[in-house]
Amino acid sequence: MPIRIAVDAMGGDYAPLEIVKGAVEAAKEYNIAIQLVGNEVQIKEELAKYDTAGLDIGITHTDEVIEMGEAPAKALRAKKKASIVLTVESVAKGESQGLVAAGSTGAAMAASLFGLGRLPGIKRPVICCTMPTAKNPIALLDGGANSDCDAEMLLEFAIMGKIFAQLILGYDNPRLGLMNIGEEEGKGNELAKATYNLLTTKKEQLNFIGNVEGRDTFTGDVHVIICDGFVGNVILKTAEGAFKMVTKLLKEQFKSSFVNMLIGLLAKSVFAGFKKRIDYEKIGGALLLGVKGVSVIAHGSSKAYAVKNAIRVAKEAVEKDVNTKIVEMYNESMKAND
Amino acid sequence: MPIRIAVDAMGGDYAPLEIVKGAVEAAKEYNIAIQLVGNEVQIKEELAKYDTAGLDIGITHTDEVIEMGEAPAKALRAKKKASIVLTVESVAKGESQGLVAAGSTGAAMAASLFGLGRLPGIKRPVICCTMPTAKNPIALLDGGANSDCDAEMLLEFAIMGKIFAQLILGYDNPRLGLMNIGEEEGKGNELAKATYNLLTTKKEQLNFIGNVEGRDTFTGDVHVIICDGFVGNVILKTAEGAFKMVTKLLKEQFKSSFVNMLIGLLAKSVFAGFKKRIDYEKIGGALLLGVKGVSVIAHGSSKAYAVKNAIRVAKEAVEKDVNTKIVEMYNESMKAND
Repeated sequence: MPIRIAVDAMGGDYAPLEIVKGAVEAAKEYNIAIQLVGNEVQIKEELAKYDTAGLDIGITHTDEVIEMGEAPAKALRAKKKASIVLTVESVAKGESQGLVAAGSTGAAMAASLFGLGRLPGIKRPVICCTMPTAKNPIALLDGGANSDCDAEMLLEFAIMGKIFAQLILGYDNPRLGLMNIGEEEGKGNELAKATYNLLTTKKEQLNFIGNVEGRDTFTGDVHVIICDGFVGNVILKTAEGAFKMVTKLLKEQFKSSFVNMLIGLLAKSVFAGFKKRIDYEKIGGALLLGVKGVSVIAHGSSKAYAVKNAIRVAKEAVEKDVNTKIVEMYNESMKAND
Repeated sequence: MPIRIAVDAMGGDYAPLEIVKGAVEAAKEYNIAIQLVGNEVQIKEELAKYDTAGLDIGITHTDEVIEMGEAPAKALRAKKKASIVLTVESVAKGESQGLVAAGSTGAAMAASLFGLGRLPGIKRPVICCTMPTAKNPIALLDGGANSDCDAEMLLEFAIMGKIFAQLILGYDNPRLGLMNIGEEEGKGNELAKATYNLLTTKKEQLNFIGNVEGRDTFTGDVHVIICDGFVGNVILKTAEGAFKMVTKLLKEQFKSSFVNMLIGLLAKSVFAGFKKRIDYEKIGGALLLGVKGVSVIAHGSSKAYAVKNAIRVAKEAVEKDVNTKIVEMYNESMKAND
């Protein structure tokens, strides 16, 4: 039986159109089954646009949707049949092996946590983001699940990040760094100092290379970067903003004269090559690690290509059994303390 | 009598060569006096390279220098005659009106704090950074002076940032935002929530527009962004890293074939125009606000152009009497509480 991925068809800025399109593409390309969750009429309307012969695409109908602006906890209490809730339920019941959601991150996170539960030993699930770099992609966590953290939580993130970098990103022995504001020991805020000391006690096991700084996020020389969810979320969005500004300013510059416009046309393919290198859409989505099930959270602005890639991430996490490996490493790590 | 700016001639990756060069250029361009602090023989050797006729450039000799790697507090205790110490002393004694330092940020900050003292009422001096955006430059603070903060400190930063944005960046009524991981009230970590509430009590006075996110750093629509020094430093360095990666990948792409290289040559002037828009060197340096005196901290990798601009920032802060205005606004703000 092929892997089945449940997809919240109603979540995201371009739902259900781009979500359904991406799901159909994923079903074809990865030879997997898809369970679309949402308004059946709308989903069928979208599906009718594509040749889905031979594809295993199921539909779970619901009329309820959690909108982007709603407070997650409150919305989940009020809408027991929300598309994100039923998407998670499909995994919790074992009907699907993983899920993808591009709607409200807070709702997806809360629904996954309540619906799937935590992995044994793990106190706090974490958003594990894949970042483009000048070399290969790396993992940054926490991407925003936990605003206030202690050192023990960051140690858990380190364990989960290591497994992710090994199994999904393909690093044999990923180099793990602690986000800080200087490289030397003793630098940083209270959390960074305490975490540095704790990670040092598991230096070899984690291949902990010490403190890293904001600029190390993009060199590709550090493969897993650990920080609290506040700092991680700020890094993600700062990088997004910086890349957007660069694109905007370059466009303005190439439009500033007729000659520049011609040069811009010539350079089009070069820019396309460049864009591919920092392609967030290819990354697809972030894995919520630490819950009992595979849950991929995609950007709210995801179009079909990003949705397809998010489904690929879910499929890989299922195939490589990321969760079991996390529990194994967590247990080993705890034993080492005895 | 012209304004005199003391410059640590020995601080920075390219000291004294680029520091002296930048100082000579600043003396010429801004019609100010300069006091170079450091090894007299080396400084004179550098000065001999330029036509300094008619310029008022003094030298304060010292053999001691604090290196980049040294722990600031320890180094300051051991080296009472370090160039950064004597540079600060020149301002403390009133011989110079402001200072510029491109060496160890920690040492420059500590020396300024100990040597100049704090402005009345201000608990924590703050590094106020100017950031390039898609529109005009904005202020981000704290850039790294205070790793652990409370809401009261962030309120002080807001007051200082507002004055800076008005007097130095030229915004009549700068829009002030709190760095957070979501725009809605109630978002963020404990510090962000407490600060949001405190800033809200001075909403009109500060023109506080609410929470902003990492990506708002570069839109130019928020003119003052407030955060703790850990988050601020991570933002600065993440942006630096993102811009470096973009430059690197673009270069690689334009070198990937002969045709692309030719297009790259054609596009050279366009890129030069683009680079000017995100030119950190033009910004020169960050002001350490909250100390009794004007202290500008420049990037360790500053070359002459950046040093010259850092001196310009110091001169403007002196001319516009930033410190007096901060004290006035701080007092008003405190009265408003009564």
